[in-house]
Amino acid sequence: MSELRQDPTTKAWVILAPERAKRPQPKHRVRPAEDLPSWDSSCPFCPGNEDQTPPEVFRLPTSDQGAPWEVRVVPNRFAALSYGQGGDIVEEARLFRKMDGIGAHEVIIETPSHNTPIALMSYDQVEKVLIAYRERYNTLKKDTRLKFITIFKNHGWASGTSLVHPHSQVVATPIVAPAYHHQFDIAHEYYIDRSRCLYCDLLKEELDQGKRIVAQTEQFVVFHPYASHAAYETWIMPRMHCASFGVFPDMYLAQLAKALKDTLLCLYTSLDNPAFNLMVDSTLTEDEEDPYYHWHIRIVPRLTTIAGFEMGSGIYISTAMPEDTASQMRACFQKLSKKGEISLR
Amino acid sequence: MSELRQDPTTKAWVILAPERAKRPQPKHRVRPAEDLPSWDSSCPFCPGNEDQTPPEVFRLPTSDQGAPWEVRVVPNRFAALSYGQGGDIVEEARLFRKMDGIGAHEVIIETPSHNTPIALMSYDQVEKVLIAYRERYNTLKKDTRLKFITIFKNHGWASGTSLVHPHSQVVATPIVAPAYHHQFDIAHEYYIDRSRCLYCDLLKEELDQGKRIVAQTEQFVVFHPYASHAAYETWIMPRMHCASFGVFPDMYLAQLAKALKDTLLCLYTSLDNPAFNLMVDSTLTEDEEDPYYHWHIRIVPRLTTIAGFEMGSGIYISTAMPEDTASQMRACFQKLSKKGEISLR
Repeated sequence: MSELRQDPTTKAWVILAPERAKRPQPKHRVRPAEDLPSWDSSCPFCPGNEDQTPPEVFRLPTSDQGAPWEVRVVPNRFAALSYGQGGDIVEEARLFRKMDGIGAHEVIIETPSHNTPIALMSYDQVEKVLIAYRERYNTLKKDTRLKFITIFKNHGWASGTSLVHPHSQVVATPIVAPAYHHQFDIAHEYYIDRSRCLYCDLLKEELDQGKRIVAQTEQFVVFHPYASHAAYETWIMPRMHCASFGVFPDMYLAQLAKALKDTLLCLYTSLDNPAFNLMVDSTLTEDEEDPYYHWHIRIVPRLTTIAGFEMGSGIYISTAMPEDTASQMRACFQKLSKKGEISLR
Repeated sequence: MSELRQDPTTKAWVILAPERAKRPQPKHRVRPAEDLPSWDSSCPFCPGNEDQTPPEVFRLPTSDQGAPWEVRVVPNRFAALSYGQGGDIVEEARLFRKMDGIGAHEVIIETPSHNTPIALMSYDQVEKVLIAYRERYNTLKKDTRLKFITIFKNHGWASGTSLVHPHSQVVATPIVAPAYHHQFDIAHEYYIDRSRCLYCDLLKEELDQGKRIVAQTEQFVVFHPYASHAAYETWIMPRMHCASFGVFPDMYLAQLAKALKDTLLCLYTSLDNPAFNLMVDSTLTEDEEDPYYHWHIRIVPRLTTIAGFEMGSGIYISTAMPEDTASQMRACFQKLSKKGEISLR
């Protein structure tokens, strides 16, 4: 029999039904890196094609504008939101409210190399990607109309990406979705009741139980959450309590780069380069110093499709037990560590 | 510039960004009916292969068990939930709550014909599908442990289906997702404040404005909602106030069959057989007589993929304005009506 589990951070229930893994399903294949060229003349993110993107808003290295770029940030050519005047909610009619689509929608081009996903990058390059994440987060939050900043990455067609070249995106919105308000309310209520952060307690419980832990560094814990929404869902959480990625100490970015790259390499190896989404969850931009939220990275492989059941019930089905997938990932970490391909274990 | 709009039924905001329709995207093609055989020897839902499914729980016609079936309902072979003992929430550890995966997960095989989707069915056959929906809903709700029943349909790979043969599904769960509790709370609060149903008022506003209305019958209104979550999202809503599909008068099912078939045929024709999800939204099984909710059918074409932005922000992006898509669908209704292929206009 399957199991229902409740996510303590959202109160959402998920169904863990390993039996459903046997269901006939189209396999979402992502082309492995070695089948792609390292440079593609038709790719707008490849070096030499810089004029095919809107003008860049950030680059690394910052010091020498003449040097070839290592990371570039540009506005999304098909932006969902854009800068401009406005930002007030307008009552268009009884029941109907709207707002101009102000905000920002940027693309972080992670590397000049067309076929080097984070899983195969050097730690140094991954750290540069994280520096760009941070810089854009902290620049965008200065516009006080923008309440929420989502940093995310889509890898593989099944994840919703339209371009192969490794890239992330950042979107800053003037509104916050009810689902996130609800999540912050849960954390706030927990804090009021216990004077402790829900996520710090959650991390302690995961570490005590141990069976869903994948890897650890001094500052980060990689684990498969108790109520995973999808098979192999992976969280990377800092041990240090901090509500927002924007105010997390710089000194730990190098360590985060290692945890992120090693985690993605293990997924790449174990699941044959799966499609996935990666999200950096932070609190509202105006609440960065709050004592109740705790930022973290969430990686969700897209091995199955979000379907009518999820859309009609709000309940997600995972086809694996997180205890089993964490154990498999731990073994993969150890194997790759022995071979010297990753530094964590 | 794009536009942000708020869904009055969930308070969720969506981004309407028609510019993004120009983005390069893989096209999710569903094979047209004429490219499929009407019978497939390897399909477990085709006549002659009845022994490949678990034993049926309902069939039409009901009167003569010897007659060939027209609609069949069987438990899902890869059920996410199953009948059994239990149904209590267990505190597994501090913060972690779980429950046995009790519930029901059934498949409604809509027709013996392998290649006849609802869009191409006779009205009479569609009505039989709706009768099966009703019968299963009302049978499953008798188990008072099951609080919420989701009837849904996935059409095309991009919608999450794994089988081509036309079918719907019904899942009964012992818990209700926070997203739905939130939606019922909004409707309840509106009712307390105004002694009126939010959805009745919404329908009145849509009819007053008219620009998002696609078609109407005496009892049903087909429209593209103000804050559509996806391009061509279509709602079919009864004019009569009623909280649950389970208690809606039988006498209107024939009219609903017409509205549903005509709507799906227009989508099939206009969008070249798109992948879509269809959900029947009803209230909790124990609140069927409540005065504040109002059941309806929601059809969401899957022309784009739910990606990291949606998962990281809770905000959906639609690449079309519902006023434009509704106008396009109205024209399609008129064209098909003139040709005599549908009865509504």
